[in-house]
Amino acid sequence: MKKLPLSYEDLWIQRWTSPFSRQSSFGVRHGLGHDCAVLSSFSKNLDLVLKTDAVVEGIHFTHSTPAALAGRKALARALSDLAAAGATPRAALVTAGCPNLRSAARLRQAYRGLSLLAKKFHLPIVGGETVRTRQLLLSISLLGTVPRGLSPNRAGAKPGHLLFVTGKLGGSWPRRHLTFTPRIAEGQWLVRNKFPSAMLDLSDGLGADLPRLARASRIGFRIHPKQLPLAPGTNLKLAFTRGEDYELLFSVPPKLIPALLRRWPFSTPLTPIGSCLPARQGYHTGRLPLRGYDHLR
Amino acid sequence: MKKLPLSYEDLWIQRWTSPFSRQSSFGVRHGLGHDCAVLSSFSKNLDLVLKTDAVVEGIHFTHSTPAALAGRKALARALSDLAAAGATPRAALVTAGCPNLRSAARLRQAYRGLSLLAKKFHLPIVGGETVRTRQLLLSISLLGTVPRGLSPNRAGAKPGHLLFVTGKLGGSWPRRHLTFTPRIAEGQWLVRNKFPSAMLDLSDGLGADLPRLARASRIGFRIHPKQLPLAPGTNLKLAFTRGEDYELLFSVPPKLIPALLRRWPFSTPLTPIGSCLPARQGYHTGRLPLRGYDHLR
Repeated sequence: MKKLPLSYEDLWIQRWTSPFSRQSSFGVRHGLGHDCAVLSSFSKNLDLVLKTDAVVEGIHFTHSTPAALAGRKALARALSDLAAAGATPRAALVTAGCPNLRSAARLRQAYRGLSLLAKKFHLPIVGGETVRTRQLLLSISLLGTVPRGLSPNRAGAKPGHLLFVTGKLGGSWPRRHLTFTPRIAEGQWLVRNKFPSAMLDLSDGLGADLPRLARASRIGFRIHPKQLPLAPGTNLKLAFTRGEDYELLFSVPPKLIPALLRRWPFSTPLTPIGSCLPARQGYHTGRLPLRGYDHLR
Repeated sequence: MKKLPLSYEDLWIQRWTSPFSRQSSFGVRHGLGHDCAVLSSFSKNLDLVLKTDAVVEGIHFTHSTPAALAGRKALARALSDLAAAGATPRAALVTAGCPNLRSAARLRQAYRGLSLLAKKFHLPIVGGETVRTRQLLLSISLLGTVPRGLSPNRAGAKPGHLLFVTGKLGGSWPRRHLTFTPRIAEGQWLVRNKFPSAMLDLSDGLGADLPRLARASRIGFRIHPKQLPLAPGTNLKLAFTRGEDYELLFSVPPKLIPALLRRWPFSTPLTPIGSCLPARQGYHTGRLPLRGYDHLR
């Protein structure tokens, strides 16, 4: 039986954050280890959703990436996590790390790209911070809202639930990782209609993110490689392991599936790719490797 | 007449954030250009307060700074901004930038220091993010709450209002900038009792932060150098320009001053240091220079 892998990133997070108490605090519905933090106790009808995400030159984009696209990507990645929480983005903070005055033009371009995407989602940028760093860096913090008690996390999938993905996988390079549209509308619709038992966004590839869902939900799974929706010009292995798809992966109880397929209102493809198993039945992916992009390796 | 200086940091922020619309959005009470963003429209009784702040090795602490103190400082700085908004901290997100696996022990120490201070303020750390960067970096995002409509900003000071500071100035080096206690309790008390017409926290020194308050409020001011509360072992000029005091600077309408002085319940010193003037009467500091620490210079 395949062992469920822990990426370097997962291991680091486990080791480093152990000083932070994981005891549930008043009003914290989901905390550390989830895509977003979800907080209740502020409003009768809404939960608050918090997310922070950073992109760094040399890791998430290169010196030759147009800065406007780097800025856009910084915000789009964070929005993708809000999509997985079914949240509506409400406010953004932008932290910029910048090496020197010569980088000012590049940073301004990055802000411009970021700003255009924010406008598309009616998202006000309400604050931020500038620090001097050795490489260009953009860190985004988002506040969102979701109807109270509805936000799924990674831990609700049960044996028998079907696994779905939105969109197509593996087409992130060379350009889509810079230009993708976060699945905010799809995530909101799914959550408001209570379809997903667990949901996350695919940032490191199905081969890395599916094990995260499985570990949190304590389930096994069987993926049908032939059913994976491939982007043009990619192959199965790349689609499984390359990452940066920023699509939604979610599980749905079987009785809800006819309604989901009938009512799905988007042109975005919606594809069943496999099913959840009892944990003891293990992890079945055909021959696809259970690994993805690991930016800390 | 002295000209009101703009630090490099102020200039950069003005230039770089111009792509971000400053139009007021629904529910955004204070946005860009304030210490914290303040959002209404989520709850009948509370406003939400958002703040992000980063510390970077080589700028805000050195390679020889004990990592636990660097982590503590990262959180304490952000809390100091919440103090200036009169807010109660409710949740924190921690973004760590880390060069390599060898830095893991140091980062873990930083988390430990940060975590201890968070516990002191009953503040849950609900999420975060780890990225690879060339230098150690900690970025903190905070969510806080404040009674609706009460949070002051920098723009409410009027001619005739008196200027106060908490604590003592100029004692930040070599150690206090790593060990100070953010004035959360003092800020909350001041705001709940509606004393400040404008408030900010002193991060870059009175010589840099007072002009920010004056510019936002469109006022002049007169500072009485002999009244500045000096920390032991410092001098007037250092106390005015060195920064990292993390004390509160606020203005109070004259009719409230007797009540403020009578009711102040803290052992923290509270000192009147000068008064607000009409803008045309200019900026009077004795011979103290209107400048402070400028980390982007």
